[in-house]
Amino acid sequence: LGVMRSLVQMNLVRSIEVEDSRAKIALASTAIPAEHHSWLQDKVISAAREVPGLTDAVVAFAEAKPKELNQIQQIVAVMSGKGGVGKSLVAGLLASSFAREGKDVGILDADITGPSIPKMFGLNVRPSGSETGILPISSKSGIEVMSMNLLLPSEDEAVIWRGPLMSKAITQFWEDVLWGKLDYLVIDLPPGTADAPLTVMQTVPLSGVIAVFTPQGLTEMIVKKAVKMARKMDVRVLGVIENMSYLLLPGTGEKLEVFG
Amino acid sequence: LGVMRSLVQMNLVRSIEVEDSRAKIALASTAIPAEHHSWLQDKVISAAREVPGLTDAVVAFAEAKPKELNQIQQIVAVMSGKGGVGKSLVAGLLASSFAREGKDVGILDADITGPSIPKMFGLNVRPSGSETGILPISSKSGIEVMSMNLLLPSEDEAVIWRGPLMSKAITQFWEDVLWGKLDYLVIDLPPGTADAPLTVMQTVPLSGVIAVFTPQGLTEMIVKKAVKMARKMDVRVLGVIENMSYLLLPGTGEKLEVFG
Repeated sequence: LGVMRSLVQMNLVRSIEVEDSRAKIALASTAIPAEHHSWLQDKVISAAREVPGLTDAVVAFAEAKPKELNQIQQIVAVMSGKGGVGKSLVAGLLASSFAREGKDVGILDADITGPSIPKMFGLNVRPSGSETGILPISSKSGIEVMSMNLLLPSEDEAVIWRGPLMSKAITQFWEDVLWGKLDYLVIDLPPGTADAPLTVMQTVPLSGVIAVFTPQGLTEMIVKKAVKMARKMDVRVLGVIENMSYLLLPGTGEKLEVFG
Repeated sequence: LGVMRSLVQMNLVRSIEVEDSRAKIALASTAIPAEHHSWLQDKVISAAREVPGLTDAVVAFAEAKPKELNQIQQIVAVMSGKGGVGKSLVAGLLASSFAREGKDVGILDADITGPSIPKMFGLNVRPSGSETGILPISSKSGIEVMSMNLLLPSEDEAVIWRGPLMSKAITQFWEDVLWGKLDYLVIDLPPGTADAPLTVMQTVPLSGVIAVFTPQGLTEMIVKKAVKMARKMDVRVLGVIENMSYLLLPGTGEKLEVFG
């Protein structure tokens, strides 16, 4: 059905009724600008006519908030307390491995002032949408991505925001983005235990968090802070990942334990 | 003069008048609990009597805010935007090299949720003080340190605070801590361009900032954000430091450029 596939994935198809080989299709118009409605209507009707047994179709649009349309099975946040331990890389690899298993996956980049996800996936397209919702950007491997860096005029622009604004952006990434139907949403948290993780843990129904650390005393101390935060907020700690355990030396292939 | 030295360094000696070999000494009582006043008075009087030409001394205490007593020549903030690039290490080494030159140096750890400085200097003493001010903790090399981790019941305790509370803590580290006379105050900023750097740049009269990065594309992009922030806030960028350029291999002593 071509065009229908992404409509279903976006969970925009609200209902389909078939009466005497005539389909009545109700679509949510969320995140679709008004000027595209008639084009979309035509596409849906011609697609419906190709379905055996259907002779005609009627399309009706209805408004709905992204939050009403989003159906996400599992939401996992990747945190660390300490920066530079490979948190975003773990988030990216986790999403990619889910995608490789054929799952529908999204990444919500909650690091507003230091977002890494778009660069990791080579994305620099501006998200589109309407007043009713924003559409995430799809990576080459089909992962839906929303990040502050996609919304900036240039990727090295600084976002000099205090906590309340930062929290508002994260809440919008959660409530105003049309994620649609996803098997997994991976949330990449910034370092620290302040506004961003606090907002995510209070606003988003997390399945759990994954804490990333490196084998250094200082990092372990600070990652313990992150784990304690999750416990205090009654969020399950799904696992702890040790990154940068060793470095494979070029040539010899020996393992060097950089941090001992 | 022994006890006087630190009083002078803390800038607590407000005035000394000598009349007929009798000294009138005015001391600020800032950060000194009331129960220590008489002990301090005795110490100062006996020290004064040992000064040739002085036969007696009178000590009077006066209240003063730490902010009125602090005299700091140069204030340098170390920032990076991105975490884990060695920001705190650079801040610590910078302070240590100033101290080795015989300068009076302090470190204000502005990373409230992920403070690294106390562990780096092996400090876990609780700062003392009175209602009028807090005294920083001295490292073995004589560097005055104030950090959130010194105030926590245990070092891996999480500080789950939103921006306004975090900013308030930083402002207190600046206004309510008796830094006294310092040649250099080094401020260790957390990653990002949100509350902490914003508060520091708006509250503290910085001489400038030093930006730390590692030779990775992602880090460079995010450090550019930090440099842009400093420019927007009219703060001088004193320098940019590349860290983790190479790894010296044990045994051969070869240089491996880990990040290419």
